[in-house]
Amino acid sequence: MTELHRLSPDARRALRSDLERRYHDFQARGLSLDMTRGKPCAEQLDLSVDMLTCVDANHYTAADGSDCRNYGGLDGIPEAKVLFAQYLEVAPEEVIIGGASSLNMMHDAILSAMVYGAAEGYEPWGRRQVKFLCPSPGYDRHFAICERLGIEMIPVEMGDDGPDMDAVERLAAADEGVVGIWCVPCYSNPTGIVYGDEVVDRLAAMPTAAPDFRIYWDNAYAVHHLTDNPTPLKNILTACKAASHPDRPLIFGSTSKVTFAGAGLAMMAGSVANTTRRKAEMSIQTIGPDKLNQLRHVRFLRDMDGIRAQMRKHAAILKPKFDAVDEILTRELAGKGVASWTKPKGGYFVSLDTLDGCAKEVIARAAKAGVRLTPAGSTYPYKRDPRDRNIRIAPSFPPLEDIVPAMELLAICVQLVSLERLMG
Amino acid sequence: MTELHRLSPDARRALRSDLERRYHDFQARGLSLDMTRGKPCAEQLDLSVDMLTCVDANHYTAADGSDCRNYGGLDGIPEAKVLFAQYLEVAPEEVIIGGASSLNMMHDAILSAMVYGAAEGYEPWGRRQVKFLCPSPGYDRHFAICERLGIEMIPVEMGDDGPDMDAVERLAAADEGVVGIWCVPCYSNPTGIVYGDEVVDRLAAMPTAAPDFRIYWDNAYAVHHLTDNPTPLKNILTACKAASHPDRPLIFGSTSKVTFAGAGLAMMAGSVANTTRRKAEMSIQTIGPDKLNQLRHVRFLRDMDGIRAQMRKHAAILKPKFDAVDEILTRELAGKGVASWTKPKGGYFVSLDTLDGCAKEVIARAAKAGVRLTPAGSTYPYKRDPRDRNIRIAPSFPPLEDIVPAMELLAICVQLVSLERLMG
Repeated sequence: MTELHRLSPDARRALRSDLERRYHDFQARGLSLDMTRGKPCAEQLDLSVDMLTCVDANHYTAADGSDCRNYGGLDGIPEAKVLFAQYLEVAPEEVIIGGASSLNMMHDAILSAMVYGAAEGYEPWGRRQVKFLCPSPGYDRHFAICERLGIEMIPVEMGDDGPDMDAVERLAAADEGVVGIWCVPCYSNPTGIVYGDEVVDRLAAMPTAAPDFRIYWDNAYAVHHLTDNPTPLKNILTACKAASHPDRPLIFGSTSKVTFAGAGLAMMAGSVANTTRRKAEMSIQTIGPDKLNQLRHVRFLRDMDGIRAQMRKHAAILKPKFDAVDEILTRELAGKGVASWTKPKGGYFVSLDTLDGCAKEVIARAAKAGVRLTPAGSTYPYKRDPRDRNIRIAPSFPPLEDIVPAMELLAICVQLVSLERLMG
Repeated sequence: MTELHRLSPDARRALRSDLERRYHDFQARGLSLDMTRGKPCAEQLDLSVDMLTCVDANHYTAADGSDCRNYGGLDGIPEAKVLFAQYLEVAPEEVIIGGASSLNMMHDAILSAMVYGAAEGYEPWGRRQVKFLCPSPGYDRHFAICERLGIEMIPVEMGDDGPDMDAVERLAAADEGVVGIWCVPCYSNPTGIVYGDEVVDRLAAMPTAAPDFRIYWDNAYAVHHLTDNPTPLKNILTACKAASHPDRPLIFGSTSKVTFAGAGLAMMAGSVANTTRRKAEMSIQTIGPDKLNQLRHVRFLRDMDGIRAQMRKHAAILKPKFDAVDEILTRELAGKGVASWTKPKGGYFVSLDTLDGCAKEVIARAAKAGVRLTPAGSTYPYKRDPRDRNIRIAPSFPPLEDIVPAMELLAICVQLVSLERLMG
């Protein structure tokens, strides 16, 4: 395959004309495909239908004898704490089981730090201009929380094994205003990379100017592997304890993509000091989360082996979709020097980089032919992709027969826009 | 019955000696009874067991065709909004269906006002010393939110048809720092009174120094009647609209005591301006609440007739317990001039007032004989009952056979402590 910028003017014109013909063919098909949302497909949700009825008139009592239908239990029924402590690789007393939304737990933890301080005796973040380090591309909803709370976001470049740690260390050490970092450490949203051991160790050990610096460790895809030999992620809490920063990480997880996206379990973990503080806040905020849904999860998933078996079923549905994305992008774009994309071993996204300054136009062009992609810039703080090149592809929800034309069209648009840029 | 302060010294001594004998008999029985928590009993929870399995492999789709198992839907599935708009007597676009906890919705609404302001263009409450009017005795968890957020609480006396409105109007008009009032308007916690029409109208119409004054209208017991001819509560939103203060009330409700206390539906209502603002906040905080539990509720309760039928079943369980409380208190204490108590027509509590300065000692004395009552002061801001006389009785959870001895013991303790006070 020849890189497009090496093509002769004639070859460029011929290619462009061919691509335009294919593009118009797509337009004529009147497609209406949505590749924007990282949500499970119906077939995946079907994997958990037995969970709907496993708590019934004869099964509503938790291991400690408490009636899950009634009030009580702020931080989770015992069996849910045991199972999801294993899931997050912490001790049961280091985990809090919440409601259905881990985003809500993250939001509330940050808002609490803004209003009351991140730890006892520290100034609330809301009293000064605080900043978060934002490995980018990253998760738009993380960035939306910071933007809403007026937390200044400092983008940090993402590499193949995590954020640029030289930059992270420099920024955290230099500025007392830098109080946090967002991390999706396993199958990062959207690049799909897994943080390397050295990155984890450096995050745990680095000196920070802010004594109350926090790592928001959103381990959303902890068990969401597409391969049989997943890359293990180093335990951040253990690493932070070893580095004498036990209160640095706040770990989040959920079963939104294990059982039901709209009715999963959210969880949070951290040092006993951190969980104790959060529980004190939560005791003011609520009487407690839905324990019946906790019981449903434990009865349905049973144990870590049950969770792993469930995730293999998810992988069997998802892998062909991820494979299709890669096959089509490879067939259409490989060697042409106009795009690179990730080949994640888990998670929910493929991240594609175009030539600089092309992403917005590519996405607009695809939309005009009936394929919706996540808006350009979404994966960056303030929705500003400084190089206008990142496109997040979410293959989980659409059926395979939609993914194929959507990716073909995307590849056509990438080439068309790139050619136009190259031809001036 | 002779009032105790009119008894001769000999009669007092005789009575005291008799009460002491009865008290010691109770102690000898080794009771361990809990009258503290306003939570449903197992028999009440059994009324809703069919709800556990009414969403199943064949029923998980909302009226708008959306899959309740998946992401999506920030403010509730359409059929839940329709039903619970009727429940709260508002329009569907004026209601937001949340997760399992209405306390959480109240907390978040106040915290949002503290951080972002109660409405667009208003200064966040957190930037100055704000105050809430707190009709007292009232709900301890309301007061706990204010205390945690540093909102100064101003107690206002409760009457038979609501708070002392002369005081409320005076305080709200005089002080720009007064930004809110807590109300449990129907079967108020703990006195069980229902706000009269005039109280509702005055709350709606009163001038307030704070332009962003809010009524936190916790209508927790909207349908929780113990009689067949319930006192209707005037609609606060309608009244506020009529008084040209459409954004003044924030209305809250839940099914915690309709279906499952630990897994009900919480809801919030108000003007479209208020719900729009809250939804914008919520869109940052969460992807959405558990829609399967919303669907369960609508499939199980069906409509307002279904809710009313369900509440009649609750009343059949609760009424004998409330009757027993009143019968025993009447038998033991009527005419003795040492206590008065409420005879609520709904809700979850009976409120008993002792002579001034006796409540703490009565509760301590009961505890020593094995009956736990809500700690004295709990029903007042900062847990300070200025007259140390209010005792909250929660008859719903214990079985009838526990309520009888618990109330007898309470009555004995009230008389003993009163006699000691009278005898000096």
